[in-house]
Amino acid sequence: MSRNLGQVRIVGGGLLGTSIGLALTKLGHDVVISDTSPATQALAVDYGAGRVPAVGDNPSLVVVCVPPDVTPAVVLAELTAYTNAVVTDVASVKLPVLQQLQESASATGTEALLTNYVGSHPMAGRERGGAISGRADLFNGRPWVIVPHHSEGGVAATSAEAVNLVTDLALSLGAQPVTMEATEHDHAVAAVSHVPQLISSLLAARLISTSAQEIALAGQGLRDTTRIAASDPSLWVQILSANAEQVAPVLKDFAADLASVIAALDNVGAPGSLSSVSKAIEQGNRGVSRIPGKHGSSQTEYAVVVAMIDDKPGEWARLLTDVGHIGINLEDMRMEHSPGAQIGLVELSVLPQVEAKLIEELNARGWRLA
Amino acid sequence: MSRNLGQVRIVGGGLLGTSIGLALTKLGHDVVISDTSPATQALAVDYGAGRVPAVGDNPSLVVVCVPPDVTPAVVLAELTAYTNAVVTDVASVKLPVLQQLQESASATGTEALLTNYVGSHPMAGRERGGAISGRADLFNGRPWVIVPHHSEGGVAATSAEAVNLVTDLALSLGAQPVTMEATEHDHAVAAVSHVPQLISSLLAARLISTSAQEIALAGQGLRDTTRIAASDPSLWVQILSANAEQVAPVLKDFAADLASVIAALDNVGAPGSLSSVSKAIEQGNRGVSRIPGKHGSSQTEYAVVVAMIDDKPGEWARLLTDVGHIGINLEDMRMEHSPGAQIGLVELSVLPQVEAKLIEELNARGWRLA
Repeated sequence: MSRNLGQVRIVGGGLLGTSIGLALTKLGHDVVISDTSPATQALAVDYGAGRVPAVGDNPSLVVVCVPPDVTPAVVLAELTAYTNAVVTDVASVKLPVLQQLQESASATGTEALLTNYVGSHPMAGRERGGAISGRADLFNGRPWVIVPHHSEGGVAATSAEAVNLVTDLALSLGAQPVTMEATEHDHAVAAVSHVPQLISSLLAARLISTSAQEIALAGQGLRDTTRIAASDPSLWVQILSANAEQVAPVLKDFAADLASVIAALDNVGAPGSLSSVSKAIEQGNRGVSRIPGKHGSSQTEYAVVVAMIDDKPGEWARLLTDVGHIGINLEDMRMEHSPGAQIGLVELSVLPQVEAKLIEELNARGWRLA
Repeated sequence: MSRNLGQVRIVGGGLLGTSIGLALTKLGHDVVISDTSPATQALAVDYGAGRVPAVGDNPSLVVVCVPPDVTPAVVLAELTAYTNAVVTDVASVKLPVLQQLQESASATGTEALLTNYVGSHPMAGRERGGAISGRADLFNGRPWVIVPHHSEGGVAATSAEAVNLVTDLALSLGAQPVTMEATEHDHAVAAVSHVPQLISSLLAARLISTSAQEIALAGQGLRDTTRIAASDPSLWVQILSANAEQVAPVLKDFAADLASVIAALDNVGAPGSLSSVSKAIEQGNRGVSRIPGKHGSSQTEYAVVVAMIDDKPGEWARLLTDVGHIGINLEDMRMEHSPGAQIGLVELSVLPQVEAKLIEELNARGWRLA
């Protein structure tokens, strides 16, 4: 998998920069990691994400991993400093970054440098940020969007060489390169990432005023719908405002549907009042069925077998050891939380054709199944 | 755990009725299961959820497990048919059911019968409904809200005996009885269940118009926030309309916050425009932190160790066998999906004080960790 990337320079020692650095260092590449904060830079280096910059560094590839609002300026500075290098960034929004970069290049007479730039966006992240959350495997199996730009207003288009090098970077990290236009990318992430983030936050905000007794009734549905509401406010304000043009229309559609539902609930009993509620739930059914299943395949209906286990060391392992001996591959697995109980329910998802065998064999081994 | 419940009659062979019947039958109780649909009744009986009704049945306890809109009528019919029995229901909304029941009792001169009635609501369910989704362990460790009513307008209050018997039912099923007023219950489930359901549906509905290429960028955040959008429309229209009085105000607060965010995104760049976006994300942080962690304890920050495993039978088991041998108890575990990849990331959540030991021991056993 390891490709010849030459010397790689990473600017920014946060979650993404550190994760890229860790992975490339493990693969044996010469990685330089730089951060405006000496403390962050030292932490990333100690963590194994690369070495400190030195006089004479001559990177072939620069990866800019800084917050979206400073990304265009940093990209232009890197293009200027390392004119032989390909420069990419990992910001979550692509058109605003590209536009500001094109403007700055025009204003400074550096339009030709942009042939070495190609925007990108690895679709990977965590609720936790910072160098110490970095993981060499963060990009494994995830899409990595690559956004070549066209020539515009005298500003040079992305070169094929730049696209190839960033494609090699993505492949080296185990990611799946996907090429998109900037607008297309921003439209897509508004729907699959930015809007869900904001809606989850607004939903979780409703919980502030609930009593302890009320919130004790929470189940897995509430936990799942609000998990990403734990994300970093400052980063998300930047992302949402940068992509406001794509996010706002989706939120307006959402608000219009919500208003219909509220009107219906305010008039329960009036003829036809519930059709918009029914429509909302049905459209939700249709929407969720469009999300691809595991491994990017189309949605598969797995059979789910539920086993009850005591909540003590080794029980999960004993169950899965038995599943392994039976020779059945788990497609997914999930632990159901049982507040207050010392018992766990493990949902084992398998292909439907092996469900009967799994049940029979687990029963034979004495497991309590539903 | 098994208590003397006497003969138990279950009305309704859906998910909840079947699950209660399965559990009580396993415990050795005499369980009668009845459904207006002969096919559903036969299925529930075949499934092991009880026996068919017979002349001379004399239940001590009747559990009404029918859709919310017919619950009051069925409860009153059961109270009238079995005057010596305690009758409870499991509808997701309590005040509308109680009010309609009180009205019907007044209209038919059967006010005294309501001393034998106590509403209840087991906080358990699945996206899938129907008898075949029934599970004897569905209520294990889940809260079971019990809603005694007071005397009102000549209608009798719940007797202590009725509360005790339904408490015993909940305990027999492994659930945790919680006593609440009807209004308090309806307010609580609006926040922790009904509003999240509707918001998840409205969010998932946004995906209908995304292209296949766009939706391929979906990550775990989108999957989690939209999972419950797969729920049954007809049931949810009933629940949401029955609890409209509690749900609508929460939705209006949500809509107001959403409108502020939309206004801010429409005016990015105006002074202070982003404060409402920032506030939304911060309030989401505060709200989600109020959800209790596993086992009903207050939110615990677990340490998360991530292991990479090959996606083949037995790998998960081999990992967990090693964790078991190390003697560390897993607090939670999660599989991260890697679309397109044949590699899985397993997040092992453990108490922070054992994290270092887990990492050291797993490394020693050759596991690839982040």
